[in-house]
Amino acid sequence: MKAEIVTIGDELLIGQVVDTNSTWLATQLNQIGIAVNRIHSISDDAAEIKSILDDVKKRVNLVIFTGGLGPTKDDISKKAIAEYFNLELYENLQVLEQVRQFIHNRGFSMNELNRQQALVPENSRVMINQKGTAPGMWIEKDGFVCISLPGVPYEMKDIMIQDGLPALKKYFDTPFIVHRTILVHGISESQLAIRVEAWEDAIPKTIKLAYLPSPGRIRLRFSSVGKDKAALETAILEQISALEQLIPEHIVAYEDTNIEIVLSQVLREKGLKMGTAESCTGGRIASKLTQLPGSSEWYAGSIIAYHNDLKTKLLQVPPTLIDEHGAVSSQVAEAMLLGLLDKPPIEVGIAVTGIAGPDGGTNEKPVGTVWIAVGNKKEQMIEHFQLGTQREQNIERASVIALTMLWNFVKQF
Amino acid sequence: MKAEIVTIGDELLIGQVVDTNSTWLATQLNQIGIAVNRIHSISDDAAEIKSILDDVKKRVNLVIFTGGLGPTKDDISKKAIAEYFNLELYENLQVLEQVRQFIHNRGFSMNELNRQQALVPENSRVMINQKGTAPGMWIEKDGFVCISLPGVPYEMKDIMIQDGLPALKKYFDTPFIVHRTILVHGISESQLAIRVEAWEDAIPKTIKLAYLPSPGRIRLRFSSVGKDKAALETAILEQISALEQLIPEHIVAYEDTNIEIVLSQVLREKGLKMGTAESCTGGRIASKLTQLPGSSEWYAGSIIAYHNDLKTKLLQVPPTLIDEHGAVSSQVAEAMLLGLLDKPPIEVGIAVTGIAGPDGGTNEKPVGTVWIAVGNKKEQMIEHFQLGTQREQNIERASVIALTMLWNFVKQF
Repeated sequence: MKAEIVTIGDELLIGQVVDTNSTWLATQLNQIGIAVNRIHSISDDAAEIKSILDDVKKRVNLVIFTGGLGPTKDDISKKAIAEYFNLELYENLQVLEQVRQFIHNRGFSMNELNRQQALVPENSRVMINQKGTAPGMWIEKDGFVCISLPGVPYEMKDIMIQDGLPALKKYFDTPFIVHRTILVHGISESQLAIRVEAWEDAIPKTIKLAYLPSPGRIRLRFSSVGKDKAALETAILEQISALEQLIPEHIVAYEDTNIEIVLSQVLREKGLKMGTAESCTGGRIASKLTQLPGSSEWYAGSIIAYHNDLKTKLLQVPPTLIDEHGAVSSQVAEAMLLGLLDKPPIEVGIAVTGIAGPDGGTNEKPVGTVWIAVGNKKEQMIEHFQLGTQREQNIERASVIALTMLWNFVKQF
Repeated sequence: MKAEIVTIGDELLIGQVVDTNSTWLATQLNQIGIAVNRIHSISDDAAEIKSILDDVKKRVNLVIFTGGLGPTKDDISKKAIAEYFNLELYENLQVLEQVRQFIHNRGFSMNELNRQQALVPENSRVMINQKGTAPGMWIEKDGFVCISLPGVPYEMKDIMIQDGLPALKKYFDTPFIVHRTILVHGISESQLAIRVEAWEDAIPKTIKLAYLPSPGRIRLRFSSVGKDKAALETAILEQISALEQLIPEHIVAYEDTNIEIVLSQVLREKGLKMGTAESCTGGRIASKLTQLPGSSEWYAGSIIAYHNDLKTKLLQVPPTLIDEHGAVSSQVAEAMLLGLLDKPPIEVGIAVTGIAGPDGGTNEKPVGTVWIAVGNKKEQMIEHFQLGTQREQNIERASVIALTMLWNFVKQF
């Protein structure tokens, strides 16, 4: 079973926007056993849309369009696709109501452009958009399926997760593809590869292993395709058990998750409230944690003490300590943590101080120097890290490492 | 003059790698007056390469391939392209020497796979790769140009900058393409479209207008193609001037930038230091600001007072105020701001309190209720917003709106 993806938008063709929609869709389609044959980006132009439909139909049975469904005049996908399949547009009352509700919830009232979003092609299935006003469409003709989705990534993803992917799985009756991802922290990709080399060489050919590294962590993905789902799962779990013997201290989770979720689960279990004192990470840790719904149950807040006066005023770091050791030092990291832990209801915490770059480095403390302290009032762990030269990478890696350190600290209780 | 880009590699089709090569190439080609008609990603397969060459030749005079030129077995572009144009491969001594030198400089000696890199098609022009061992190729046939480049981004870019772009500019006598992007805040896409409808309808057909929305802001992009660069620029600037009359309060910048950069420029100019007091945005604002290199010059820090005790302890919000009006209220937003402004060196600031969701909403204050205060010790502006129901969107929109409010406040001085 093969598909092609077509992303529509002049912004892609002039290089203003990177096409991440295709990447996400390709990953998702692969996971439900649909291989992607080609990916195309074309302009907001009806003739282009019709021409590529002609081509794609010759090669595969499924095309997914993204983009060109918004309310403004430069969005023409819906009309072009409907014309291609000889379908009239009509006002769908369910969509109209959903759009009205969506606009209403934001405190606005419907305008003519919003109303046009409810126009959908006859003989097509509407794919409700819960995150926006442009619905998706599912059109079938002679065994060929054409899905058209909005280009806004979170709307497109939500429609696919809620509707598109399950519907495709059912419609095309694809074989099982079993994926299992584990989360590995505290080891680099090449270190990991060397450490598990013999194990990796012995993995049966039917199981594919992929290293998916991001700053501070590696996701290891096991994949296997076949008719017997239970057998596929068992075979993968055997490999994971063998790996666990080799790197027990580095496996943070046995699912595709992230360290903030793993940490939040432990905090919830233990009934602990945490806080953060951030300097070089500048709120990245706070922002990651508060992205999780319900984080107020276990997260009290953060002090982003970028300026040294705030370290002193808000975290009670003695100015003499900063003068003596510098703001980026184990002593200041420790003092920041202790100052933080003095603010009820915070019981456990993280303090980070470092030089994210590109400026601010010295010979003694180059860019990438980071001190992280975690702990509670009784016990603190402080560690030094020498990260890289890229600001964004340093902020992200320091944040992930700090969260991992606190998770290691908290789970022992 | 139009071109198409084809990136080759299975890793693109399974979603493991985002195709940033196309984005970069599209930007570069646009800048030398070559419009990109379509972008394609295909698999490492000779038949696919030949088939897409057939298609592309029908539409445009230039194709640029990236990928599939490396020394390993799954890289087959060179052979497939040479076969398509009926060209034999021969060992090019200049390339062989360059590869030998490159390998030697790294302390290795040549192996059979390296040697194969020196095989190039006859009647083609070699594009020397100074950053790697796979050369690029330039093939011309009947007015059609086919360029094939390695897939490693920094190698591909170097070959294009050193050789490809100047050569293309010379070979094709191209018109100019002028793009201009402006940044619009504080109005929704459909509201904007309605408000500027008459103006938009009157835009000359030679200028294309695109709406590029993200949470809390819209980028408006004007594009025009022609022989007289100055005339194109003037024509676009006239449209922007006319638009400025219609929505003066919503235009944040006349270039493709973002609000945190715009705000940072004003703060730097005025020599002001800012701080933030965040509740529902949970550090998102701090994180956006500290992503900018050198932010410590104008950013002092943030208090993320998620828990009410921290609002009281760190921002001196009176507990009675919270009891009386609730933590999400204009009174608490104001008190948070005043508490923040009491921490030197902070001179101007933002305070945000709200309900990001999905939980925590009430009938009176549903999810999406947000109060934002900005100002200095003398003067504060406080506004209420009713955002949507999605946590992530609410955090992002509230952050962008708050930054816009502070920018409006600060620029008046």
